[in-house]
This record gives sequence, C-alpha cells and structure tokens, in this order.
Amino acid sequence: MGFAIISPGRDVSVWVKIIRNLDKKIEIQVFPEIKDYSAVKAVILWQHPKGILDKFPNLKLICSMGAGVDHILEDESIKPHLPITRIIDDKLTFSMTNYVLMGILNFHRQIERYQADQKKKVWDMSNPEIPITVGVMGVGELGGDVIQKLQFMGIEVLGLGNSPKEHMPYPYYDRGNMAEFLSKVNVLVCMLPLTPDTEGILNMALFEKCSKGTYLINVARGRHLVEKDLIPAIEKGYLSGALLDVFHQEPLPENHPFWEKKEITITPHIASVTNPEAAAPQIIDNYNRMLNNQPLINQIDRSKGY
Amino acid sequence: MGFAIISPGRDVSVWVKIIRNLDKKIEIQVFPEIKDYSAVKAVILWQHPKGILDKFPNLKLICSMGAGVDHILEDESIKPHLPITRIIDDKLTFSMTNYVLMGILNFHRQIERYQADQKKKVWDMSNPEIPITVGVMGVGELGGDVIQKLQFMGIEVLGLGNSPKEHMPYPYYDRGNMAEFLSKVNVLVCMLPLTPDTEGILNMALFEKCSKGTYLINVARGRHLVEKDLIPAIEKGYLSGALLDVFHQEPLPENHPFWEKKEITITPHIASVTNPEAAAPQIIDNYNRMLNNQPLINQIDRSKGY
Repeated sequence: MGFAIISPGRDVSVWVKIIRNLDKKIEIQVFPEIKDYSAVKAVILWQHPKGILDKFPNLKLICSMGAGVDHILEDESIKPHLPITRIIDDKLTFSMTNYVLMGILNFHRQIERYQADQKKKVWDMSNPEIPITVGVMGVGELGGDVIQKLQFMGIEVLGLGNSPKEHMPYPYYDRGNMAEFLSKVNVLVCMLPLTPDTEGILNMALFEKCSKGTYLINVARGRHLVEKDLIPAIEKGYLSGALLDVFHQEPLPENHPFWEKKEITITPHIASVTNPEAAAPQIIDNYNRMLNNQPLINQIDRSKGY
Repeated sequence: MGFAIISPGRDVSVWVKIIRNLDKKIEIQVFPEIKDYSAVKAVILWQHPKGILDKFPNLKLICSMGAGVDHILEDESIKPHLPITRIIDDKLTFSMTNYVLMGILNFHRQIERYQADQKKKVWDMSNPEIPITVGVMGVGELGGDVIQKLQFMGIEVLGLGNSPKEHMPYPYYDRGNMAEFLSKVNVLVCMLPLTPDTEGILNMALFEKCSKGTYLINVARGRHLVEKDLIPAIEKGYLSGALLDVFHQEPLPENHPFWEKKEITITPHIASVTNPEAAAPQIIDNYNRMLNNQPLINQIDRSKGY
C-alpha cells in the first residue's frame, strides 16, 4: 500500500527519493506509470488530469504538493468525503514574504526610477520616497506573515479577508468593506486562495476604486487577475504599475502584452517554490495519521475552498 | 542669543522656519550672513568651512544637522571642550533600514536577473534564490536596526563593530576577527561611522578576504570605499556587485566609471535624508539643556569619533 504521485510534465524523482529515504516501507507509483491502482491509499497531486482519481478504489487521502489546492478543487469528480491537505512550510512562507517585501520596498524606494537615472547619468535627490500604506488581500498563513513583518518594519498595513473578524492585531476589513479598504492603501498585494469567489477579483471595477497610482503585487494565482483589465487600469492611472509572479498561462506566452509594458515587472512563478524536503515529512505524517484514524494536519475546508 | 546655521550651498530656509515655529525667542543667523558673532551660543553644521568656529567667542554647543559627525570632526581647530551632538531620528533609521533591506532582497531574489529575462521574454524558473548571510559593519543605531529587522525576517545576520562586546543578541565580531566575519557572509553592508580608523576600510585587501561573489552595500560615507578597488574586485569575482548610495565626490562626476558598470547600482545619496521636522526639536532641546547645564542628548564621544 502507498502513494501515487500525479504531477504531469514535472520531474518528481526528487520527491520519490526523499519519501523513500524517510520511509522505506511506503510504495510509490508515479503517474502515468501506475501498475496497481488498488494499492494506492493516498495521492500527491499537482495539476492532475481531471476525473483520474475515480480509478483508485482504495483512495483515502489527497495531498497537494504545494500551498494551494485550487488545482484539486477544480476537479468536481472528487468524492466529497475524501480529505484534502496542503503544505504549510516555513521556508515557503519565508520565500513568499521576502518576495513581497522586495516588491513593496522597490515601489516605496523607487528602484526603477534610480535604475533609469543611472542609465542617463542623472543625479536627482528630490522626493526619495513614495509614502506607502500596504493592503494585503488574504490574511492566512502567507498573508498574515507579510502583515506581521511589515508591522515590525514600521510600515502601515491593512488586511482584507473574506468574513468579518474581531480583535485582529492589525486594521482588518472584510469583503463588504472593500471600497474603504482600497481607499486607504496605495500598495495592493494579492495573497488570496483561488476560489470561485476570488477568481477575477482583480478587475477594472476594483481598480477604479483604488487610490490613484496604486501599485499591484500578485503572488497568488494568475486567475485572480482579469489580465485584459491591467494595462488599461495602468493607462488610466488607477494603477502605477504591477509586479506579477503568476499568470493565466504559464510560461507567459511570448506574444503576451505584459512582457513589454514597462510598468509591469514579470517573474516566472518563483515567489515561492515548494521544497520537497519540507513537504515530504508533512505528507508522510498525514499518511500515517490517516492509517491510524488520527486528525490530519493542514487539512482544508472544502466548503471554503482553502 | 541663539543659533548660527552653517551649511554652505544648501537652502536652509525650511530649518529656520521650523526652529522659529518651535521657539520664537531663539535668534537664528544663517552663514555667511552672520551679523553678530558674539550672539551665537550654538551652531548647527553641515560641511562648514574649517576654522570658522573660532570666530564665535561665546560658542557652547555644536550640533550636526544629520546622523554623521565626520564632517565636524575633520575640523581640527574645534576646541576639545565643545560638546558635539548628532541627530537620531526614527524616520531616518526607518528610511535607511528600508533602503538596505531593499538592496539585500534584490540580491537574494535576483531582481536584476528577472528584469533582464523580461527584456528577452525568457521564462527561467531555475534557482530562484541566492542563499544569503548578511554581515553588517557598524552596529550602532542604524546598523543595529537593520540587524533586528533581518533577524525578525528570519535572515541570517552577523554584526561587526570596533571593539569586543559580550552578550550581543546576534553573532558579533570585532575588528580583530574581520577575516572570520567576512568568510561567513555573502552580503556586506557598510553602516560604519567615518573615522580615521574606518576611512578606506572597503579596499582590495578586504575584498580578497570576502566569500566569492559577495554583494556590497554602502550607505555610510563615500570615503569608506577605496573607489579604484571596486571594479577590479568585481572583475576578479571577489564581489558580484554593489549598491552604492554614497561617493567620494557627490554628485558623482559624469565621467566616473561606476555609472556604466552594470554590476553597480547607484542611488544619489537618498538612502536616508535628515528630516528637519524631526531634527529641529532635538537641537532646540539640546540648546535648552546647554543653557540649564543639563546632560545633552545624542552627544558624541570625540575620542571614538561617533
């Protein structure tokens, strides 16, 4: 009995090796070379072919290879009783936070202005800082960490989540107060989970409510952003620019207009990359918990989508 | 009785206005229009003409307009009994720290690599982070703040100061252990005061002891760096690049080779700019303390030079 790893097109040999080193007894099969479907009790997934899980008659546990589970929940064929877990990894949080802080500080301290000045040998000391208030959309493990770090740095920060919450250690807004939230910030960071509720949330109607010249950072999922609205929002001045790590189609197609828009900075989905060394022990732990009928760690609530 | 402000070539009208608003009784004269030298009990200085303080017979207090006092201590004619104060300003610390963190994160997360990839429409997800350990030279108000912020972010950091110190809340090295300090870090941040001891400390002999590919950030004073050694140190691979905010001659002359060296990022001395709103109350406070024979705040130790 054991695992199937289903992550088409990705070399998962390092995952196999790490899991084997941690627990020699667990059998591991790698999609598409599944020889014994009935031997699989748990699957480890990243963008699996929809409907495939029906082939595993003894499946008891679904593990995401990363922090997100949207790629799993999109598959409506998955039986509702199957528990789904995700990875919570300090290293993943560390990387994501550092990337976001980099984006915020580069806007605040105008690195691109100084890079352009250097090319022209211009020495211009005027207005060395853009005052900022940061709005973080999504206040879970990842968003919460960014908020905590910004507070420690003395940078004003607000959080926005789905539902009303009280006694938060920072100014908190729920979706019902979105317009007020947007009016108070000029850096907007999207760290939301991707759910039917949040898909396309970064659209022209939202950009119109932003403080003029807001800077957008999206490190969540490409589909949070209505891509065709971004360049018009920059050209109308609602946004001053954007740092994007995620896109509808990845790699970003060569003819995509984002590549050449100078106000948009593109990185190739590297804000935070799941580290198998940190993830594998969590997956094995959950596998053993499942076998022993113990509560799982980092299990998601399917009704919420995260 | 009152102040003279001596800061040749700088428009100090905003300083005059703020001091007047805070205390209408203090007389302010601005160099070179000093009508009554004997009325001056305190001077507020930034790069004053050397020897000029001898002209003030009733001088009791010397205030730097900024965090540094090297521009004052260079004037050997200043009588040893005259107390010298500097500005400690949370906003100045905030700006300096944010600038340094920006430089560190841009190296760690390789922003310039991704900017170059974007120009070529290259999507390269490999090796998204350069692992870093940061070495901060200078562990006073400013260096200490950077160290504290990095620790909170979970980034490894070491401090280096002039003399042995015990029970520091971070790994601490003194000048006697410089080689060991340099061998452990790959980002080197200079936040030292400029003294005869530290002038030219960033030179080829030091770069040769650095871990290969160390990234240099200098936000202290231009004269900490032996400028002619920097490009050879990059070309020999001791350093991978540098972020410089300060230079021997400012503005940096148009024919200076730093402008066009792609591994060097230049900003025009804007890491942190003294804010007269924060500085003026400290200067007035010290003026009143001097009149009432009370201990001064932020007085420097002339034997140490900071």
